[in-house]
Order: sequence, then C-alpha cells, then structure tokens
Amino acid sequence: MTELKQIDQEVQALMWQMRTETLSKMQQPFNVDEKSGRKDLVTTVDKSNEKAIVAKLRELDPDAQILGEEGFGDQIEQTAGRVWLIDPLDGTMNFVMQQNNFAIMISLYEDGVGVLGYIMDVMNAQLYHGDTKSVFVNNKQIEPPTNLHLRDALIGISGPLLINNDHNMQVIAKKSRGPRMYGSAGIEFAKVMSGELIGYISYLRPWDFAAGKILAQTLNLQVKAIDGGPLSMLSSNVVLVATERASEEVITLAN
Amino acid sequence: MTELKQIDQEVQALMWQMRTETLSKMQQPFNVDEKSGRKDLVTTVDKSNEKAIVAKLRELDPDAQILGEEGFGDQIEQTAGRVWLIDPLDGTMNFVMQQNNFAIMISLYEDGVGVLGYIMDVMNAQLYHGDTKSVFVNNKQIEPPTNLHLRDALIGISGPLLINNDHNMQVIAKKSRGPRMYGSAGIEFAKVMSGELIGYISYLRPWDFAAGKILAQTLNLQVKAIDGGPLSMLSSNVVLVATERASEEVITLAN
Repeated sequence: MTELKQIDQEVQALMWQMRTETLSKMQQPFNVDEKSGRKDLVTTVDKSNEKAIVAKLRELDPDAQILGEEGFGDQIEQTAGRVWLIDPLDGTMNFVMQQNNFAIMISLYEDGVGVLGYIMDVMNAQLYHGDTKSVFVNNKQIEPPTNLHLRDALIGISGPLLINNDHNMQVIAKKSRGPRMYGSAGIEFAKVMSGELIGYISYLRPWDFAAGKILAQTLNLQVKAIDGGPLSMLSSNVVLVATERASEEVITLAN
Repeated sequence: MTELKQIDQEVQALMWQMRTETLSKMQQPFNVDEKSGRKDLVTTVDKSNEKAIVAKLRELDPDAQILGEEGFGDQIEQTAGRVWLIDPLDGTMNFVMQQNNFAIMISLYEDGVGVLGYIMDVMNAQLYHGDTKSVFVNNKQIEPPTNLHLRDALIGISGPLLINNDHNMQVIAKKSRGPRMYGSAGIEFAKVMSGELIGYISYLRPWDFAAGKILAQTLNLQVKAIDGGPLSMLSSNVVLVATERASEEVITLAN
C-alpha cells in the first residue's frame, strides 16, 4: 500500500481530474436510466466516473475493498479493514435537470472509522477534503462553523422527509429560520461545513454521507442517525448533520 | 425623461454598481433588524441599496413613481403612468445567513404593463435583463426553456406553502421530479428562466415578482396567480411562474 499522505495527494488529483471529465461529459449526449423509479436516476456519467475511480483506487490501494454506488466495486458485508466508498455523481437528478448542484464523493474508512474524505462541488470548483484533524476547501483550511441554535439559522431538509412530516420535520423546519432544499447530500454537507446551513437531514445511503461524516465531525459538527444513535455504514439511515446545539434540539423534536 | 434605450443602459450599469457595493458592504459589519418577525429581516444594506437606487432613478426618470420595498420611494395606490419597482436585496435571510443566494431587482411598468426588468444574482455575477422582446444573461441572449410537463422536472416551492400544504402543494411537489427550495424569488425566477426549475411557487409581494414577471413572460413562461388569474401589482399574491404545460397542470392541481 502507498503511504497515506501520498494516497491523499493522489486522490485529490483524481477528484480534480474527475471534475474535468464530468464537465466534458456533461457537454456531450449521455444516457439517463431510472433505477428504483422516475425520481432515482443513473446516467452513463455516473457509471463511467465510478469505473475510473475504482480503477485508480485499485492501483493506489490494491488490498482495500471498495463500495461504489453503481456496483463496480466489491460486495461488502462488514466494515473490517480498509474500505473506500464512492459516490461517482451525487445529486444525479440535479446533474440531469440543472447541470448544477451536484458532487463527486470519495472516502476511506479503516475498521469502520473515517480516515480521509473528499467532496467535489463540481460547478463551484470547490474540493472539500481532509482527515480527522483538519478540513480544507481547495488549499484553504476552514474553521468549525459557529455553534448556533436551530432557531437562529437555516436548515436543509430533503423533500420527502418534509412533505411526509417524518420525524416531525415540519415542526423542526418551523423552529428554524427556514428550510432549504438543494437535492444533493454532498452540496448540503458542504453548506453545513461552510455555515450556510446549520444542519441537514435526509434519508441517505452510506456513499451519500460517508465523506461528509468524516469532514463534518472534524469541524465539531455532530453526525448521527435521527434517533441520536450512531450511523450504520452498511445500510440506509435518516442522517442528521448539525451544530452541536442544533443537533440536540433536532433530536429532541424528532423523537 | 431620458430615452428608454439610454435608461436601460444606465440601469444595467446601476445593477453592476449595486452588486459591487453590496459585496463590499457584506464584508463590513451591518445591522440586522426584524420586520414582521424573526423570519422577515431587513439590514442596513437593504436600506442603503434602496436609497442609492431611488436617487439614481429620480435622476433618470424624474416624473415616474417609485415603489421600493423599504419605503424610500413613493406611496403608490394605483398603477397608472410609469412606475419603478425596487427590491434592493431579495432573499435578505440568505444574505444574512449564507452570504449567498440573494438578488437585487428593479423593473419598470407603464400603466401596469411591464417594460424593463433586471435581476442581479450577486454571488454568481449574473444579470438577467430585458424587455418584452428579448432576455439576456449579461451580454448573452437566452432562449425560452423547453415546455416540459410537471412530471419531468424539478419545481421550486417556498417553505411555508409546502409545509402547510397550501393549494395542494404537497401533491404538486410529488407529481414533479422533486421540490427545491432556495429562499429567494429572484434566484428562483432566474432558475426557471435558465431551465434549472420547471416552475416556482411562492407568496410574494409586487417587488418580489415584478422584474421576473416581465422577463419570464418574454421567454414564453406563464406568470399567474395560483388560481390562474392575473397578478395584482399592488398587493401580495401566491405567484406561479412555470412553463405553459406545467402551469396548466399546477393550476388544475391547486384549485
């Protein structure tokens, strides 16, 4: 295995390369298919991105396992050892409909513990990356956001959770200064880290939150299941990322 | 009165000047006050922007009336003659909380009919502007968005309307490919014009929708009250802007 520091440099370069390739593929025709239904899309760009990322990670870290959204990695049933998680295009609906507000995400876990995380906001050319010690946007280290209360800031909530009032989301939205809805976990984790949102709540799969969890925790943000418990790294969860104060308040209101 | 074409050039220049001033004021301390409540903010930037815009419009068009959100224009009770509408900072909550996703808007109506419209997306440096014949983003003319059905695209819906299910908004959101919520009428009108959203629905005051109405209609978009009727230019309305197909579908579902 390559040194961790060198792997980090190589994966950062890979993220920028994937950004360039994604922008280029966006200008050409690509196929769109439905997965579980008309609100769950996959494109040939998701697939080719994942193949390229898997190939590079195999080269960098041949003994690790890889869990990719589109299935080009390994079948993973436990979190022991080194595991890379890949979301080759997060916010595929936005990618197709808006050509805006989508991300590419990669992360490395070791025995279930986060090691490295990467979120590329493609259209804004911002790479959020870091480890358990520090978080950077491109080359600039960022500070933890202010530990605000729910009542004092905006909160990101996914459409289905808000519409169905799951876990009391409508009350939570009303307690905040207002809900926002951007349609990409990567973009919304980035907005929580930059302080644009005090928190974000959505039903997510492991590759949707794996990178954000590592980076957000390094910035003193809480990342939990909506019941206040730990997140499973192998299944779907209603995920809450928020400042410490807002996290406590949301969990109280949601349960 | 100055020639209309010259006025247009001067107002475009004014919009870029206001952008520069707003970015500068954003870097300095500014005061935030609540208007009707904790979700309805006004800052010293809203006020100073409006004063500067009113002063310039008085100089360009001394006989016109001016309706400004912050009250530095005239008291207006009817739409006869030439009326300028100003929203000196649209999405003030986003301005305060996010330093992102806010707009400056100006428009000119004559006897209640739209003449010129301007929406400045400050952080993206994009000025949407035009008249009843053509719409530009900065110097590039834009084409009407594709006339999609509601089921085929994303729709912007304001938080209160969606949470309270006013006018059946939850059903409308579910029929679409998904709801989005950005918190600024100017930004959301721009996203409908660029095709990122198929439509947008929110409870708005005249200065919130006046500029967007002119530009959107020029792009073959429908801009109506949610009951399908015309908008009042002197009071608040639940406003729908959408493609022709989505507009019909939303109005049917909402009533």
